[in-house]
Amino acid sequence: MAEQQPAKKQRTQPTYELLYHPGIPGRGEFIRLAFEAKGVPYYDIANEDQQNGYAEVQKICIGQTAGVDGNPPVFSPPALRVQGAGKDGQSLIISQTPNILWYLGDKLGLTGTNEAEKYYVQQLALTALDLNNEVHDTHHPIAVAKYYEDQKEESLKKAQDVRENRIPKFLSYFARTLEWNAASGKNKYLVGGSLTYADLTVWQVLDGLQFAFPKELEARKKEFPELLGTFYDGVKADLKEYLDSSRRLQYSQGVYRYYPELDRQLRLDAEL
Amino acid sequence: MAEQQPAKKQRTQPTYELLYHPGIPGRGEFIRLAFEAKGVPYYDIANEDQQNGYAEVQKICIGQTAGVDGNPPVFSPPALRVQGAGKDGQSLIISQTPNILWYLGDKLGLTGTNEAEKYYVQQLALTALDLNNEVHDTHHPIAVAKYYEDQKEESLKKAQDVRENRIPKFLSYFARTLEWNAASGKNKYLVGGSLTYADLTVWQVLDGLQFAFPKELEARKKEFPELLGTFYDGVKADLKEYLDSSRRLQYSQGVYRYYPELDRQLRLDAEL
Repeated sequence: MAEQQPAKKQRTQPTYELLYHPGIPGRGEFIRLAFEAKGVPYYDIANEDQQNGYAEVQKICIGQTAGVDGNPPVFSPPALRVQGAGKDGQSLIISQTPNILWYLGDKLGLTGTNEAEKYYVQQLALTALDLNNEVHDTHHPIAVAKYYEDQKEESLKKAQDVRENRIPKFLSYFARTLEWNAASGKNKYLVGGSLTYADLTVWQVLDGLQFAFPKELEARKKEFPELLGTFYDGVKADLKEYLDSSRRLQYSQGVYRYYPELDRQLRLDAEL
Repeated sequence: MAEQQPAKKQRTQPTYELLYHPGIPGRGEFIRLAFEAKGVPYYDIANEDQQNGYAEVQKICIGQTAGVDGNPPVFSPPALRVQGAGKDGQSLIISQTPNILWYLGDKLGLTGTNEAEKYYVQQLALTALDLNNEVHDTHHPIAVAKYYEDQKEESLKKAQDVRENRIPKFLSYFARTLEWNAASGKNKYLVGGSLTYADLTVWQVLDGLQFAFPKELEARKKEFPELLGTFYDGVKADLKEYLDSSRRLQYSQGVYRYYPELDRQLRLDAEL
């Protein structure tokens, strides 16, 4: 608007704000990894402002009708707020993890080198996020708002199907993509010859799977040696500084949970 | 490549091919609606070439390692093939429904009038597709590869949660977005003043819900009068020619199925 002062050249706040729940990696982690991999500053408001941060996230992300700064309502966190990038110099607020990744992929240089690669990167991220959802459902197959303990019988069945059928189907797809791209990616990158948010998103899901289903993943290492070896270790090395920092939150009661009864059960010799 | 002839100016084949299962609307329907709403020709290969079409879909979309025409493997249908748009004049093949919609949104003029609106449109489509997945899980909460009859007990519980908690949460979000955009959209469009693929995607989910849970949706009409009235009827009118044609496939054994036991049960007066 005409009355507004021009934005300050030197900002004291980071431009990018992550709006997400505090204390868990969750779906916010896919966004954090994009920033961390490129060393770009971001403000993780609910974790960094423990006094007022989460109230701000809730104000923007829960139950809004009017929208904030001219943006439409948000269905649920994570959302990204970019100061000055919206209507009339206000903030831009966008939501849905893969949508935020598409936006940041362009800005941060994490989405390949041509138009086709942008779509390849997004389809891989979307597929990894589908697996992320299926893993969530291993401990919440009936109702997201009920306790695990109240849907444990169904969880045992769901987890068995996800471990035996769905995880190998998804991992086979990622492994085949790695192989397809081996000439450029050297078994380290899924698309092209450098890091993209497809790598980061698939990596985070693999890392979470190893936390939630350690026996299952250990048993599958032989089937997917490059995916769970060269690829997993390579991205991990790229993220080392972040992973060693206190900004990397521990898995706890989010998507990736460790319930031993949902993991592969060691079979007795007598059963084989 | 240097040896190639330039592409013919007059194509005899449509440029866009939808690669999907035959005989069901499914996730392919979100792609069909984009073409149909704009009257842009597309080749629905598995339905239009009943002899060889589905074999071609399977060849490209199931278990590929090498990829086709330099494109990476596809996880599962739907995929979109665009002749001449890929590497060295070969075809471009991309997958994942929201990714295909993003691509077509640009080409067909279904994604708003500025950069911010493109992200708003995509976040709405992604959210509608999340609800689409949750509806699928009402009849397959335990395992996608097992029969409904083998997971019926769990389906009764899952469907109750989706009906009572998830459907109102999602419909409230779409209704609030409609309200946010009422000045431009007149309760007919979710983003801006004309049709986008957000409208088409939300509409298709609402249409499927009315098929799968007719009593539930009837009972909720009072809560969401614009969404299930002006909006639903308006998009339906825009699609009338298509919906009246034989190209619009019937719901059957896809995502949207009618199992009366999963719908809201009429309560006896004595229970109230």
